[in-house]
Amino acid sequence: MQSNTTSSSINLAKTYAAELLPQNQQNWEGTKRFLEEIVKILLEYINEENRRESKILDFHHPAEMQKLIDLSIPDNPCTLEELLQDCQKVLRLGVRTGHPRFFNQISCGLDLISMAGEWLTATANTNMFTYEIAPVFILMEKEVTKKMAELIGWQDSDAIFAPGGAISNMYAMNAARHARFPRCKPLGQGDLPTLCIFTSEDSHYSIKGAATVMGIGTDNCFNIPTDPSGRMIPEALEERIIQCKKDGMEPFFVCATAGTTVYGAWDPISQIADICDRHKLWLHVDAAWGGGLLLSPEYRHKLYGIERANSVTWNPHKLMGALLQCSACFIKQEGLLFQTNQMSADYLFQQDKPYDVSFDTGDKAMQCGRHNDIFKLWLMWRSKGMTGYRRQINRLMDLAAYFTARIRETEGYELVIDPPEFLNVCFWYIPPSLRNVEKAERNARLEKIAPKIKAKMMERGTTMVGYQPDKQRPNFFRMIISNQAITKEDLDFLIREIIAIGSEL
Amino acid sequence: MQSNTTSSSINLAKTYAAELLPQNQQNWEGTKRFLEEIVKILLEYINEENRRESKILDFHHPAEMQKLIDLSIPDNPCTLEELLQDCQKVLRLGVRTGHPRFFNQISCGLDLISMAGEWLTATANTNMFTYEIAPVFILMEKEVTKKMAELIGWQDSDAIFAPGGAISNMYAMNAARHARFPRCKPLGQGDLPTLCIFTSEDSHYSIKGAATVMGIGTDNCFNIPTDPSGRMIPEALEERIIQCKKDGMEPFFVCATAGTTVYGAWDPISQIADICDRHKLWLHVDAAWGGGLLLSPEYRHKLYGIERANSVTWNPHKLMGALLQCSACFIKQEGLLFQTNQMSADYLFQQDKPYDVSFDTGDKAMQCGRHNDIFKLWLMWRSKGMTGYRRQINRLMDLAAYFTARIRETEGYELVIDPPEFLNVCFWYIPPSLRNVEKAERNARLEKIAPKIKAKMMERGTTMVGYQPDKQRPNFFRMIISNQAITKEDLDFLIREIIAIGSEL
Repeated sequence: MQSNTTSSSINLAKTYAAELLPQNQQNWEGTKRFLEEIVKILLEYINEENRRESKILDFHHPAEMQKLIDLSIPDNPCTLEELLQDCQKVLRLGVRTGHPRFFNQISCGLDLISMAGEWLTATANTNMFTYEIAPVFILMEKEVTKKMAELIGWQDSDAIFAPGGAISNMYAMNAARHARFPRCKPLGQGDLPTLCIFTSEDSHYSIKGAATVMGIGTDNCFNIPTDPSGRMIPEALEERIIQCKKDGMEPFFVCATAGTTVYGAWDPISQIADICDRHKLWLHVDAAWGGGLLLSPEYRHKLYGIERANSVTWNPHKLMGALLQCSACFIKQEGLLFQTNQMSADYLFQQDKPYDVSFDTGDKAMQCGRHNDIFKLWLMWRSKGMTGYRRQINRLMDLAAYFTARIRETEGYELVIDPPEFLNVCFWYIPPSLRNVEKAERNARLEKIAPKIKAKMMERGTTMVGYQPDKQRPNFFRMIISNQAITKEDLDFLIREIIAIGSEL
Repeated sequence: MQSNTTSSSINLAKTYAAELLPQNQQNWEGTKRFLEEIVKILLEYINEENRRESKILDFHHPAEMQKLIDLSIPDNPCTLEELLQDCQKVLRLGVRTGHPRFFNQISCGLDLISMAGEWLTATANTNMFTYEIAPVFILMEKEVTKKMAELIGWQDSDAIFAPGGAISNMYAMNAARHARFPRCKPLGQGDLPTLCIFTSEDSHYSIKGAATVMGIGTDNCFNIPTDPSGRMIPEALEERIIQCKKDGMEPFFVCATAGTTVYGAWDPISQIADICDRHKLWLHVDAAWGGGLLLSPEYRHKLYGIERANSVTWNPHKLMGALLQCSACFIKQEGLLFQTNQMSADYLFQQDKPYDVSFDTGDKAMQCGRHNDIFKLWLMWRSKGMTGYRRQINRLMDLAAYFTARIRETEGYELVIDPPEFLNVCFWYIPPSLRNVEKAERNARLEKIAPKIKAKMMERGTTMVGYQPDKQRPNFFRMIISNQAITKEDLDFLIREIIAIGSEL
């Protein structure tokens, strides 16, 4: 990217933001020059991030980090040159989450079409509450959620994009409570029986979180046991529901997880739906992570029964690779989101507007202002089409199978769950020094291995993968294969790297 | 921006996203070319948006709009050329919220430094839950919220950026409930007395919204009357609190608004704080809109007493002009956010990490994943410094005074509240045909004037300003002067334009 001569003549080291647009209408050239310099920095970052030999991070402890960058708010403005240096420094000291060997979170990778979409979203800088100020994006949200609802297996339904899966789950739980007890909206919970909800012990903590905010209470959120693969045991669910009723409580909400956070397990939705039918309970499917599999005709059977849900959470910022954040909550009963959340603010949702105000989504939302999370998804989806997504997701599943096979066959590695059912591959690395140790002692010492390897990995900056303990299982690694940039070589690299770090422990 | 010869040779009309990074590591030139083309489109948009003669929008009803752009998700991928055309079309059909004559919302304008910050945020694409993957941004959030807390008048305190003011208000209410009744977290509200909260009838609807989600109920959210300028009447608040106690309810939360949505009124925080002290109630100040005035030594007295609050909502995406979304919730009691929201997910918040895990903010949050909303604010603030913001905000206050004077002196205009106290200037335009009509009839007919003018304004696409009715007042315009691009000429233009449209009605 070269600047033309006019704009090159601007001295960024002596120019301030106040001299650019929009404050100074005359200085388009300076404005353009500054933004082009920003883009140059971003392009360099993207190029570097995609090179495998680049480090993912330069790890610094918080106290050191504070010495490496001046984060203070100054009395006087910084020059444009200083701002550009700030940008470079921030990127240099950050973690390259789009690096092909960053396996640390469920949301990995940097889809550049989605990123371009987010740049445009920033520039358009509008708010999703009314058709009046976001006409195209509102229609886009309608179109895309319709497509997603069809993939779930629904015809007429309702949906809203929300800031992350935790809030989407809260939308669902709140709609469920409203559907059963509409009087809770005016009167509060004081008037209701003791509500209780059910979710697997391996489900995401945001279900408990929503129960807390909503005044239901964590003790009334029952953790249903899972089988050794991490799937909810339906019989245990039904027993618990019956017990709660006997205890005088009011069950109203069951969450089935489609793709659990740690193991990537699939709760048996169809069996759970039968139980919900019998007991007249709201079925929510938290498919924040697993929802993307609906795009693959080869694998969508793993979500068999999802069409029987009353609500679904699905985060395109996970398996589909959209930029953060991009999460949607789907509600089967049309109109319910509106009934649940409507507060009728006159200043926003006037009924005497010149267009069909049913397109104003604001009164369906728990928030007032709502970020535009649709464009980055829409543009990316168009760049791949249905066929491209199918290919991308099937390829990730193939890579997970490859990695699983490599773990199985490589000495010192052990799968936590065999076979893994999704893109989470959980495993231990057992250093030679522990291989012939008796089990109880081995487990006690194994607990410390993953944190040590991870710490060293972060120092080396070559790759990143998460770890955690679970119930009786000592700390293990959770490999996530969701970044479309991953190749078999990257997976081989991780296996070698862990051995290189861990074999002497 | 010119592309170099290598990248120019790529035929965008025959290239697909799958041929770019990160899928195809070899094609950096093509990737760069595509992103540069995107930037070219965005720069053109910014340039055009800032020209006053550009239209703010081309209004189309939803049905027409759907014919003007293909929003469908195709089976097969679109070419890069098609994606670029999509971007152009989306921008062309959208509303230019950064146009200097877009006065329609409280969040107006496009600060280009903040926008550059958001571009970088998209490229860095990380998540705010742990220091592990967002080290710089986590420290930045700490630094900036410390500065903001100091402006509030606090030393040690806690804060979190949240997706919009409504969620920030919910954070505050939830923390308040937890502070008073920690047992609500495990046991839910069933066990508690009937909670009730108080907010002015002119406050934002998200207070009621939070009460609904939290299971408190809208009937237990008491609207305290306001004086003719829109300020809460403290005596009415205290009466209501006493009455609620007599009725066996449990008051626990009072919201004072600093800058109401419609009138920009300032509740008397200090007097309200006295009442909260007497009755031992949590005082929340919703300064989503007015908080920015703390940056002006000349005007910060309007928030006198805010340091006595237990919690504060402050949205930098409003008066400070940060890109959407940027909202923070401040809690005076250190550690309370953590106690309220902590769910201790092992897979994210391991205690055996190699760094000081008190820097992991995830367990303070209601969400799990949290968007990075700090960088766009930090970079913009550094570009202005404290002095620049002071100047910018004082200038907006001067412009509001100018506009108010012009409304007062121009025939046919009438202020709804005189004098306005902030950057909201509410007014009627009374067409000649209504000027000598008896009051009741005039008001009835006036109700229809603003919607008609607004509809015509949107057709012309020259400017946009919001309207609403309020209590006994017929529809009036709410002018908002928050965009730093506004000049006196723009204000004169609005006055002329409304006359041009409305004088024949």
